[in-house]
Amino acid sequence: MKKKINERKKIDDFLELNSKKQVVVVQGLGFVGAVMSLVCANALTAEYAVIGVDLPNEQSLDKINKINSGIFPLETSDLKIQKFYKNSINKKNFYATYDEYAYSKADVIIIDINLDVQKKSTNLGDLKSYDVTLASFKKAIKSIALNCKEEVLILVETTVPPGTCKKVVYPLIKDVFDSRNLDINKVYIGHSYERVMPGPNYIDSIQNFYRVYSGINEMSSKKTESFLKTIIKTDEYPLTKLNSTNSTEMAKVLENSFRAMNIAFIVEWTRFAEEAGVNFYEIIDAIRMRPTHKNIMYPGIGVGGYCLTKDPLLASWSRKNLFDGDGTLKQSEMSVRINDKMPSYAISFLEANLLAQNIELKNVALLGVSYRSDVGDTRYSPVQNFYIQLQNFVENIYLTDPYVKYWDEMQKEIDLDFKQILSKSLDSVIITTSHSEYKCSKILLDLLMKKNKLFIYDTVGLLNNEEIKILKSKHLVRVLGRGDIN
Amino acid sequence: MKKKINERKKIDDFLELNSKKQVVVVQGLGFVGAVMSLVCANALTAEYAVIGVDLPNEQSLDKINKINSGIFPLETSDLKIQKFYKNSINKKNFYATYDEYAYSKADVIIIDINLDVQKKSTNLGDLKSYDVTLASFKKAIKSIALNCKEEVLILVETTVPPGTCKKVVYPLIKDVFDSRNLDINKVYIGHSYERVMPGPNYIDSIQNFYRVYSGINEMSSKKTESFLKTIIKTDEYPLTKLNSTNSTEMAKVLENSFRAMNIAFIVEWTRFAEEAGVNFYEIIDAIRMRPTHKNIMYPGIGVGGYCLTKDPLLASWSRKNLFDGDGTLKQSEMSVRINDKMPSYAISFLEANLLAQNIELKNVALLGVSYRSDVGDTRYSPVQNFYIQLQNFVENIYLTDPYVKYWDEMQKEIDLDFKQILSKSLDSVIITTSHSEYKCSKILLDLLMKKNKLFIYDTVGLLNNEEIKILKSKHLVRVLGRGDIN
Repeated sequence: MKKKINERKKIDDFLELNSKKQVVVVQGLGFVGAVMSLVCANALTAEYAVIGVDLPNEQSLDKINKINSGIFPLETSDLKIQKFYKNSINKKNFYATYDEYAYSKADVIIIDINLDVQKKSTNLGDLKSYDVTLASFKKAIKSIALNCKEEVLILVETTVPPGTCKKVVYPLIKDVFDSRNLDINKVYIGHSYERVMPGPNYIDSIQNFYRVYSGINEMSSKKTESFLKTIIKTDEYPLTKLNSTNSTEMAKVLENSFRAMNIAFIVEWTRFAEEAGVNFYEIIDAIRMRPTHKNIMYPGIGVGGYCLTKDPLLASWSRKNLFDGDGTLKQSEMSVRINDKMPSYAISFLEANLLAQNIELKNVALLGVSYRSDVGDTRYSPVQNFYIQLQNFVENIYLTDPYVKYWDEMQKEIDLDFKQILSKSLDSVIITTSHSEYKCSKILLDLLMKKNKLFIYDTVGLLNNEEIKILKSKHLVRVLGRGDIN
Repeated sequence: MKKKINERKKIDDFLELNSKKQVVVVQGLGFVGAVMSLVCANALTAEYAVIGVDLPNEQSLDKINKINSGIFPLETSDLKIQKFYKNSINKKNFYATYDEYAYSKADVIIIDINLDVQKKSTNLGDLKSYDVTLASFKKAIKSIALNCKEEVLILVETTVPPGTCKKVVYPLIKDVFDSRNLDINKVYIGHSYERVMPGPNYIDSIQNFYRVYSGINEMSSKKTESFLKTIIKTDEYPLTKLNSTNSTEMAKVLENSFRAMNIAFIVEWTRFAEEAGVNFYEIIDAIRMRPTHKNIMYPGIGVGGYCLTKDPLLASWSRKNLFDGDGTLKQSEMSVRINDKMPSYAISFLEANLLAQNIELKNVALLGVSYRSDVGDTRYSPVQNFYIQLQNFVENIYLTDPYVKYWDEMQKEIDLDFKQILSKSLDSVIITTSHSEYKCSKILLDLLMKKNKLFIYDTVGLLNNEEIKILKSKHLVRVLGRGDIN
């Protein structure tokens, strides 16, 4: 209790330092919320006092303490992050806490917590028993409703099943407001989904990018617009208003389902290209010349990250459970199934090649564990499932990734420097993430050429024709989607 | 026989008029071949004598006669077509014939004939018994091989199942060449698929657009490149060389499968949007702001035209039958199934609404029968299946389309002028093609507002919000994908 009182005092002190500023509270200090806090603390046309709130568990308390003691808790290649964070320290306008008391001081509350899908089966691609539980999301909304002022803008940024603002958030807040004798008509509820892209343009993916927004009523919509205009360069990236929170919620999961679908689509064709003995990368390059086909995807080891692996399911679940729709979104669900299975295909491809060449692998180096090039994000990385399956038949697997010091999901220390890993005695090198550091790297090529005969397996099309030619003079080289060399 | 000798004399006379020019023969005078002939007759950096060859059946002979008597046989909104055709008349360098004798004079033979998929079932979307028969394609190749010179460039432009040049065309020509005691190594076989788009940029879709090409060997590839450079603006639209005819053949069907897939993807989401009561067009507009999502499709009544309705099947068939692949292309086949069913959905939507409103339709006007806006192409138009099903419960259906005088597939005269149709006594107007002439048309709006109460059904999202608002004041308005107004 004393601790709590102390924390409240700290919040009060922080707000006194920042008096006359509007107070923005960001709920959730993950990949989105932490950076959203920085963007608000560095708003373009307003001065905000920003409080980040996260749960009082070990991991979050560590983040909170870091933020308050001068260490930004996310590894990133975006230099703007450090600049924005330093600014906020100088301005003393960013504070982090676990205390819900913060909500009572907020003029704007931004919801950036997770809303997860549970894929219960351990079989990759099996979605029969997946589920969406809103329990922790609801709990978070409730904690806001119990503490917030009557007149506050609650801005949902979390990717939610379409229908959530109207069918979940609003009734929940109304219930609590009724019990608090507050007027539900004074609260503003807006929805504006983020398009955050961790990586070198992390900040810009919020501040300098298009935004879609809506509100549960006209006034909520206006309040949301006014707020967004203070943090986003809307003269260059005009806002798009949609008529209903159902619409913006749907837009977000549709965007990601569109990408998931287009990745899944390529899977079957990659197999076909391998069978037909052609270079699928060359084909995709040729097709991308057409303006109407610029977004066609390259092959790879699978889909990862927090969004594409679950958003199609959020949508499908919503259609069935929140709107009593005529069925699920079958095609979108199928994309997730296909994408989830991709690491298994990459393993089968490897096994078939090892069998054909009568090779047994003992010592293997994996280059890259994050799900995307030039990013340290390992959430739902396809490399994880590839690695787990590889362990079944390979004794020693050495891991490296320039952006991942510690692989949370696998609880593994990672070598940042691939040169370390390549100095080991190896019989295979497998490229699993196409980090720029590996691309056209003379150092990598030289090191590989110094090794005894290797089985080199490129799952992401990182090697170019010239490199493949050189490597083939000494090693066995296989690339997913390169039927012409396999 | 005498007729044949006369025709040969005409070809000889034509070539004497065009002596010193290289001879290009285009096999097939359909939507691609006829216009390809014009592009060759108006080559940028060469002077060609162009002979178009088609079969001696009634329909083709009519085309042949028209071409030779100053009438270009295709209706089109592209003014360049008439210009190019007039040029060729003035230069006297374009002749059409049914006589295979033309092949014996050719330096370049371009294959622009059809290669069809037979969907045998009458149930829309049922692909169980679809088939690809190469018989007529093979016959056409054989007629070339039997007549052509030993040293000739045979350029396949037809969309074919991947593998066709190597596994069908080459062996066929080799057989015939062996029997003719000709050297198969002297013939050049290239593949370069067209990306022809009938409509206002018909010519430009050939002359001013990117091209992909390949040859069955290095020399064939070079010959193909040299030829293409004479007819295409390659300084602005550089050619892309792929390493194998398998690759270019695959690229073409992949391009079209990609689009078919993306259209099919939207179908389920349109239903979801209707159920969630939102405006799906507004959502798609918002998403298209993102450069990575510019190609996401709008909803509609279905897919038509010669390519998207069959190319995914050509690919899937090839994987199984020409490459003994590990299965078919399931997702791509599914897109065709979904797209083929769309007109039926549009009908169910209509029926459900009529039932709910207790309306019976007797006199209906259909606006647009072609498969695409501003084009007179009715091949595999989704409006055809919509129309057939509509006939089951509507007595009088009045048809109009500004680009279609006669609807070949339905053997129907069509009124070019929608004002004629709207002067009839009507209880419903259904918009089935989004021709520019109907878009934001004050005349259309005024005519509709003068009618008694109508059931207005927009299957292609042609009506804008303002128009819907006005129309709703008098009529019942329904739009596919507009859950917000339905």
